[in-house]
Amino acid sequence: MRRKGGVRAAFQGEPGAFSHEAVMRLVGEEAEILPCPRFEDVFAALRDREAAAAVIPIENTLHGSVHENYDHLLNFDHHITGETNVRIIHNLIAAPGVMFKDLRRVFSHPVALNQCLHFLAANPQLERTPFYDTAGSVKMVMEEGLKDAAAIASAVSAGIYGARILKKSIEDDRENHTRFFLLRRAGEKPLPAVGPAKKGWKTSLVFTTRNQPGSLFKALSAFALRDLSLTKIESRPLRGRPWEYLFYVDFLGRLEEERVKRALGHLEELADMLRVFGCYPC
Amino acid sequence: MRRKGGVRAAFQGEPGAFSHEAVMRLVGEEAEILPCPRFEDVFAALRDREAAAAVIPIENTLHGSVHENYDHLLNFDHHITGETNVRIIHNLIAAPGVMFKDLRRVFSHPVALNQCLHFLAANPQLERTPFYDTAGSVKMVMEEGLKDAAAIASAVSAGIYGARILKKSIEDDRENHTRFFLLRRAGEKPLPAVGPAKKGWKTSLVFTTRNQPGSLFKALSAFALRDLSLTKIESRPLRGRPWEYLFYVDFLGRLEEERVKRALGHLEELADMLRVFGCYPC
Repeated sequence: MRRKGGVRAAFQGEPGAFSHEAVMRLVGEEAEILPCPRFEDVFAALRDREAAAAVIPIENTLHGSVHENYDHLLNFDHHITGETNVRIIHNLIAAPGVMFKDLRRVFSHPVALNQCLHFLAANPQLERTPFYDTAGSVKMVMEEGLKDAAAIASAVSAGIYGARILKKSIEDDRENHTRFFLLRRAGEKPLPAVGPAKKGWKTSLVFTTRNQPGSLFKALSAFALRDLSLTKIESRPLRGRPWEYLFYVDFLGRLEEERVKRALGHLEELADMLRVFGCYPC
Repeated sequence: MRRKGGVRAAFQGEPGAFSHEAVMRLVGEEAEILPCPRFEDVFAALRDREAAAAVIPIENTLHGSVHENYDHLLNFDHHITGETNVRIIHNLIAAPGVMFKDLRRVFSHPVALNQCLHFLAANPQLERTPFYDTAGSVKMVMEEGLKDAAAIASAVSAGIYGARILKKSIEDDRENHTRFFLLRRAGEKPLPAVGPAKKGWKTSLVFTTRNQPGSLFKALSAFALRDLSLTKIESRPLRGRPWEYLFYVDFLGRLEEERVKRALGHLEELADMLRVFGCYPC
């Protein structure tokens, strides 16, 4: 599944996964892809120079933050150079020639099946069959040449495996979006921009404070006193240290700005630990 | 699956699910249970008096907050009266008489299978087979009388379906915990406490502010100026209103305390919307 001429980008899942769609948006349609079984493998592939970039999901509008990937951001020495939001659109996909009336079974990841309950309730003739992942179910339906079965997956996966979309957008909730980060190794330049020009800059960081009343309030003064807008804040208890917290913060601003430099200097003074994950167009 | 004499509690999943374990901790071992297919059904069962209490997962240490349940908390008129943390322990479970050496297949929810990768890599003779949910896979292995198959699920599910635990705690990461809330209808008293006495009180709420620089900082002053400790803060973009945010906050304190009343009055002044989800022992 590697195409020639493009940058090689690692992601978790099968070709056609929603992460693959994020790769196409962030790295370009010509990206060579390196599908990996686990998130940790994605970070390691970038570290070991098997890929020049990596794309990871960081949060979803229904399911919250992917804490595992925040942990990997802390453990690996990569930096964020871009972000994108992908709307999770589920499609009913079958082999060419298979008609909707032929279908008796539908394969997909249980999370995707659970996001299409209205469609499945309206079509009780379709037996729901759990599968490892969404794009993998398209691959399987095609490889096995199934005539009575469809998969639920992304439009990209239909294209990759030569399958056909029978019904578009069968998900219950249209407000299902996943935010992805594009990563490069520390010290390496961002890739050339893909897609429409971005308007501003965002910076993502993590810091820790002792759990004293008001410690977060003091830390946020570093931003508030300089009129910097936060676009995300999330606390997370530190493993094994029940009264200490990590805070994930995104704010609008660029590391080169004087007020951003001063805000980070101020935050460093108030926090026990501070790490900037990256600064990228948004 | 209903036992006599106890309070009836609704939860999502099959009997033996981790939510069922949370019911046993929050409502007691004698609780009558009402398993529901979806989270929304759990909230509706409580509203419609099919259950006297409901138990829902709200966040997980690896997978973040369950935003869907925060949405239901806003849409239904229930209140939080208790919380508990359940460590997610995965066990290899088979029918009595089945030996580990007989096993060729293992069934479970893909998320659970993915949380036992070290064990599965060390036992390549076991074919991984995705299933709807963890406890449901135990039920199926028992009902089908499978002699070459095991399920990966909670210890509680083994007891419920008369199955046997072949290997305990086969999960990769021991730091996998889910936090659950116990809910009652608005205006109804908490159930009698179960388990060891709790030491303090926690209050959970949601508020919105316009995304002006410093608006969150001002809102948090309501807590900081009164030395109230936050134990959770999380922002979430408001659907369809790209520059407005919801904030979920938990803090240590009881609604009856004077400084808590004053903090909430102050926050009401600074926020566009404020809703207290509940105050409960912690």
